[in-house]
Amino acid sequence: MKQNHSENISDRTSEYPLLEKINSPEDLRKLPLDDLPLVCRDIRKFLINSLSSNPGHFASSMGAVELTVAMHYVFNTPYDRIVWDVGHQAYGHKLLTGRRDKFVQNRKFEGLSGFPNPDESLYDTFTAGHASNSISAGLGMSVASEMQKENPHRNVVAVIGDASIGGGLAFEGINNAANTPNNLLIILNDNDMSIDNNVGALNSYLGKITTSKSYNTIRYKVYKFLKKCHLVSERKRGFILRFNNSLKSLLSRQQNIFEGLNVRYFGPFDGHDIHRIVRVLRDIKDMNGPRILHLRTIKGKGYEPAEKDPATWHAPGKFDPETGERVTGDFGEKKTLKYQDVFGRTLVELVEQNDKIVGITAAMPSGTSMSILQEKYPEKVFDVGISEGHAVTFSGGLAKDGMRPYCAIYSSFLQRAYDHIIHDVAIQRLPVTFCIDRAGIVGEDGATHHGVFDLSYLRSIPNMIVASPRDEQSMRNLLYTAQCDNYGPFAIRYPRGSGRNKEWQTPMKCIEIGKGERLSAGTDVAILSIGPICDNVKNAVKKAEAEGVSVAHYDMMFLKPIDNVILKEVAELKCPVITVEDGVISGGLGSAVMEWMNDNNYPSIVKRIGIPDKFIAQGTVAQLYHQCGMDEDAIYNAIISIKMSQI
Amino acid sequence: MKQNHSENISDRTSEYPLLEKINSPEDLRKLPLDDLPLVCRDIRKFLINSLSSNPGHFASSMGAVELTVAMHYVFNTPYDRIVWDVGHQAYGHKLLTGRRDKFVQNRKFEGLSGFPNPDESLYDTFTAGHASNSISAGLGMSVASEMQKENPHRNVVAVIGDASIGGGLAFEGINNAANTPNNLLIILNDNDMSIDNNVGALNSYLGKITTSKSYNTIRYKVYKFLKKCHLVSERKRGFILRFNNSLKSLLSRQQNIFEGLNVRYFGPFDGHDIHRIVRVLRDIKDMNGPRILHLRTIKGKGYEPAEKDPATWHAPGKFDPETGERVTGDFGEKKTLKYQDVFGRTLVELVEQNDKIVGITAAMPSGTSMSILQEKYPEKVFDVGISEGHAVTFSGGLAKDGMRPYCAIYSSFLQRAYDHIIHDVAIQRLPVTFCIDRAGIVGEDGATHHGVFDLSYLRSIPNMIVASPRDEQSMRNLLYTAQCDNYGPFAIRYPRGSGRNKEWQTPMKCIEIGKGERLSAGTDVAILSIGPICDNVKNAVKKAEAEGVSVAHYDMMFLKPIDNVILKEVAELKCPVITVEDGVISGGLGSAVMEWMNDNNYPSIVKRIGIPDKFIAQGTVAQLYHQCGMDEDAIYNAIISIKMSQI
Repeated sequence: MKQNHSENISDRTSEYPLLEKINSPEDLRKLPLDDLPLVCRDIRKFLINSLSSNPGHFASSMGAVELTVAMHYVFNTPYDRIVWDVGHQAYGHKLLTGRRDKFVQNRKFEGLSGFPNPDESLYDTFTAGHASNSISAGLGMSVASEMQKENPHRNVVAVIGDASIGGGLAFEGINNAANTPNNLLIILNDNDMSIDNNVGALNSYLGKITTSKSYNTIRYKVYKFLKKCHLVSERKRGFILRFNNSLKSLLSRQQNIFEGLNVRYFGPFDGHDIHRIVRVLRDIKDMNGPRILHLRTIKGKGYEPAEKDPATWHAPGKFDPETGERVTGDFGEKKTLKYQDVFGRTLVELVEQNDKIVGITAAMPSGTSMSILQEKYPEKVFDVGISEGHAVTFSGGLAKDGMRPYCAIYSSFLQRAYDHIIHDVAIQRLPVTFCIDRAGIVGEDGATHHGVFDLSYLRSIPNMIVASPRDEQSMRNLLYTAQCDNYGPFAIRYPRGSGRNKEWQTPMKCIEIGKGERLSAGTDVAILSIGPICDNVKNAVKKAEAEGVSVAHYDMMFLKPIDNVILKEVAELKCPVITVEDGVISGGLGSAVMEWMNDNNYPSIVKRIGIPDKFIAQGTVAQLYHQCGMDEDAIYNAIISIKMSQI
Repeated sequence: MKQNHSENISDRTSEYPLLEKINSPEDLRKLPLDDLPLVCRDIRKFLINSLSSNPGHFASSMGAVELTVAMHYVFNTPYDRIVWDVGHQAYGHKLLTGRRDKFVQNRKFEGLSGFPNPDESLYDTFTAGHASNSISAGLGMSVASEMQKENPHRNVVAVIGDASIGGGLAFEGINNAANTPNNLLIILNDNDMSIDNNVGALNSYLGKITTSKSYNTIRYKVYKFLKKCHLVSERKRGFILRFNNSLKSLLSRQQNIFEGLNVRYFGPFDGHDIHRIVRVLRDIKDMNGPRILHLRTIKGKGYEPAEKDPATWHAPGKFDPETGERVTGDFGEKKTLKYQDVFGRTLVELVEQNDKIVGITAAMPSGTSMSILQEKYPEKVFDVGISEGHAVTFSGGLAKDGMRPYCAIYSSFLQRAYDHIIHDVAIQRLPVTFCIDRAGIVGEDGATHHGVFDLSYLRSIPNMIVASPRDEQSMRNLLYTAQCDNYGPFAIRYPRGSGRNKEWQTPMKCIEIGKGERLSAGTDVAILSIGPICDNVKNAVKKAEAEGVSVAHYDMMFLKPIDNVILKEVAELKCPVITVEDGVISGGLGSAVMEWMNDNNYPSIVKRIGIPDKFIAQGTVAQLYHQCGMDEDAIYNAIISIKMSQI
């Protein structure tokens, strides 16, 4: 298999002369130090070639090339652990750890995950889909190593970005690291960018830490002097580096937050100077206690278009590797808008009507299209950085004193704010509108990014309204309705990708809370759906009707409160019921329908279609719908087989 | 009503001469500054008298008396907002804001909430049940005030303890506060204690901040000199205070983390010197931008036994106000152990058998009885402070590299770690045992503390095992079983309070995962329960049997995986089914049973008994069970009425 593949790409062999020889970090570690810049060059070339035709996350991995090579060069991976934070910077790591040939299948169904995945490789030590977890996870590993007295000593390195380190979880990890016996090395990969520009006080602080030229001069003079005097021993390296740090503090009169928290700080260093990184890593690798190494990198480094516009090149789609021209447009759906853009543009209209409305985003202005409002009315938007918990509690505070916050967060990221929704919004019935983007199966980002739990966990929270539009127009009506009255918390979930209607900008109106709609009448089978998966159902119903099955189809629109009138109508049909939702079937729409039937003494049989009880990996949405039995054919088959079972 | 009550306590009137005159903060603000120490004395006296007979949180409120009085004296509450963090320090606040007469009903059914509660009073601006939310909520209010150009200018004060400020949410709030136009004043009430002793690097840091005597001398000389020269104007006060701060940094060579984060820092000051606090608050109240005032207080201040042992006096129960002797023991249940103690003692046994086991607690060693292990094997316990998210991710890291962490967190606090359970444990099938204390209705702590969502939200997470023991022995078996094999994440939830078996320390054995037990056979009604509410069911069944109803009763033990054999047996009985659980009925055991019946084509009617879809306030567990229709009588009535409906 491997050989075959090698033959296939034999014509490209010469493009990556050094990378081609590296089948594991062992091979890398055999190279002389001076070859490392060439390895970095090969990785960048490979990434440009590969990602230009098979799209993925680009700029982050380009910026982390030297860091990646240096870590695998200095540390004895996989025995030593590298814990990535938000793994879209880890493509270089995948290339060095035996997955170069499989990389053509990156983010594809049954291919490689776009993030580190422990099921995929020993080198992927921990799940890295949501930001800020690497320090806590790495601390756990480091403590485990200490407790088990691993021999030889095991190093644990947690890599974290400058946006991720602003998340509360990262702070909790640092706060705990300093008073626990451990040997954790935190590498701060600081490119002053997450997906969008970074915000927050810590970020400004990181930007201000400088290494002055005079300091560097003194530093090296001292170091060389000590070396000359044979005063530099293994034992003393740590002391000298610490001394240098104090010297720096003294010279620059800067307050170091990390040192304040009792975590030793080294840096900032140029994260693209591989010689320097290797040297520093060797210097500090065997020190005891937690320490942080601050590297300054450039997102998109080595590819000019990406360096110039790193936000766009975070995940640029296909592009021409020579010219940097991006292939834009969503194939075949060019004329319709993404749901996020319907949200973003509608929000501008709402703000223009209601001056209490403000938008909240947690580091995702472009991802949620909150940027549209931000561009027009910057004072109406709060980008709070990677801090979903704070985003929700802050929204609660705003709502408490008269504002109408629209808090837009991806469904899977909103999981971070579950308790905050309960305590800081729902208990107090505060009018926060949750605009839950990327709800349901998201496709290529895989298990960590599918937004499949929200219907289930939001339904069990008292005082919540939970809705999902079936199309752009109902989405606009829901967004409008949320501010029509003081309804309390109002969740509107919608998927990644585009809708189907070109004419999306219809007039908005207040709709009745908890009211669904009958889309077709029928008597053999009743099918209840929520959200845009309605389209799949419609098509399946059409096919079944053609086969002579009479199907009643309802768009419920609201999961909570659920439409009792429709449910009573359905129950009175006394026919089998099918529910369809783009979420976990445990506790969602299907469960709600069953609960109603039971509570109202209708002994119906309800068949639930939705995400089964397992984590779903990456693939196209169509592939994953098929896998989960949620596509048009599966729904059609469910209708037919339930009808047959009645005969 | 009020008058009657006043008459009742007329014999005590002279005990609190000043407090008696304060029916709202308006009254307080009319007093001369020199009366404030007397108000503080009255409040303390009142708290001692009241709480000695009607137990509640004691030491925290005693420590916050001067702070509370000073805030209401200086700020124009309720127009100005005070946002409390973890509200058990807010009793003094309740006394000053028109609830003195109602305080006898503190924490009682239909009485006052033990925490700030916006439904109870305009002065309670925000829910404060889970730590660390005050900065984010206060920031929201402050921004809302700025955006709406409130006139007069509205001040917002967020009060936060030194333990709470170590939570990730608080950090996210501070990080965001510094780059948002706002006027938030953060008051850090630092008593170097949460419920137990504090941990974490930030805490050590706070302890090290000092104000040297020489600094104070210089500070006042400078201030007086400037005043003498008429250089102290309204406009310049801020400048001078900032200058003093820089002076302090210079003299003490301390790095100030908050200033590093661009939040102005003032302190530390003696939090019991009311003259000083009032003066400082007046000095800094009208400054722009976020700022932090650091007060050092003593938990339990003013009551010697509490000052000496603040952990015990956090919530001491009844006591003799004169002698400080505590009335110990759980009335009538003296001979049985609390569930938390069964956990704590069993964990010691497990650690002695399996050296991979470690205990994790998030600032609750005594609350979870992790302290029992901590005392015997301190190196086996990690108290990570108030940081439930980190506790779970850290446990994931430990489990990844070979340890068997038992992570003990109260059910409602675990909500903070929902996403961490999914990403950092469940996706990776890591063997973390979640020991979920205070599950179900907890009683007097009320809406924010009931642990009622866990069954529902854990059930929808793939790879989870979710169990609840019905008694001490099954609890021990579950705790033992969790480490018998590599089962992945294993949740064991158990309630607050004591069990019923004196002989709890039975030999432990591995039990079969997903297997329940039939406790009684029957044919008319089948009743399925999970957890210790089993006892209520047993009694109800006994009564129903006496009435001639034949009831089959099953203890399911596992919610997930659920016992298919039992469910098939129940379905084949073709009788009505009742489920009973101490959790929200939306998505829990009842839903699981319905889902199984539907998936397997049994059109049964399942009646669910559990917490209805609303937030439940405080009261005794018995009162709240009655309110929710979960007590013995309600279960009995459900059996009878479901039986009658069949006839």
